[in-house]
Amino acid sequence: MKFCSYCGAQVNLLIPAGDNRARHVCIDCGTIHYQNPNIVTGCIPEWGDKILLCKRAIEPRYGTWTLPAGFMENGESSLFGAAREAMEEANAEMRDLKLFSMFSIPHINQVYTFFRGTLHEGCASPGEESLEVKLVSEEQVPWDRLSFPVVMETLKLYFEDRKSGRYIAHYGEIIKQDSKTIRVDLY
Amino acid sequence: MKFCSYCGAQVNLLIPAGDNRARHVCIDCGTIHYQNPNIVTGCIPEWGDKILLCKRAIEPRYGTWTLPAGFMENGESSLFGAAREAMEEANAEMRDLKLFSMFSIPHINQVYTFFRGTLHEGCASPGEESLEVKLVSEEQVPWDRLSFPVVMETLKLYFEDRKSGRYIAHYGEIIKQDSKTIRVDLY
Repeated sequence: MKFCSYCGAQVNLLIPAGDNRARHVCIDCGTIHYQNPNIVTGCIPEWGDKILLCKRAIEPRYGTWTLPAGFMENGESSLFGAAREAMEEANAEMRDLKLFSMFSIPHINQVYTFFRGTLHEGCASPGEESLEVKLVSEEQVPWDRLSFPVVMETLKLYFEDRKSGRYIAHYGEIIKQDSKTIRVDLY
Repeated sequence: MKFCSYCGAQVNLLIPAGDNRARHVCIDCGTIHYQNPNIVTGCIPEWGDKILLCKRAIEPRYGTWTLPAGFMENGESSLFGAAREAMEEANAEMRDLKLFSMFSIPHINQVYTFFRGTLHEGCASPGEESLEVKLVSEEQVPWDRLSFPVVMETLKLYFEDRKSGRYIAHYGEIIKQDSKTIRVDLY
């Protein structure tokens, strides 16, 4: 960020009075431009003993398998956003969504929320961002071709809970340790 | 938003190719400036049968009682942010935090997350943003002087769960119905 989005003047990186971290502050109008984490919201569409996965038609991770998810928009709720993403990516109508997992990913400034729910009538087809969609049992999950660690961790927790018959809402963190390694902490 | 924060040129509100909603797009460098909901993260500090509340020393809602909470920062997790807010607002060290509630508030583009946990040694004192802090039992909660609906809803769920002895992670939405009325939906 180099310019003030309100008045077009330059911004400087400095610690405002009463704050304790550097912010982009306009040298002219004084506006403080905060930058905060984004929410990615998605769902686990269930149909019988299967769940719905989508093969990504977009970068990053083109061609890998994922759960329907995307950036939450202003003016919507996390749950509505999850249902909207299922519709956009898989023409999937979701019912009875419940919060299932929340993961913080500090090194990319993102928080993921996943809701599980029923895929209405088991119907789905690829949306614009998907090459393919399919219903898979636990044994059919392509574990080595999943899109992101947060998808793998959510699916692992999901199948564990399903075995126990008791679903709880999970919170975890995906921490970058070095350029090739992440660590998953569950709380 | 009137100017591009990267190059300082003007932005226009238009629907980018492949998108379905209006975004601020730079007329010169073409950068799309997405605007997304913010996360407010906080905690329920527990000590015996009491919890810690803070009296706000800042607007909005100066002088009302609240749980320690604030905007999540880039580079931190939701849980770390909740602990940081407890330290900043109440010099409170939190232990064993667990996800307790998540509320979407679409009309102000916010998502709240609350974690419950132990207030280390029961110690707290007012930080810069608090006039006062106090440990209260359920009967002592100033229900008519709480800061925000999301704090009231979280505390109601908390005391219900405490009675049943079974804490679950809750998801809800606070929906504005008109200028004076909100509706709370729990899922």
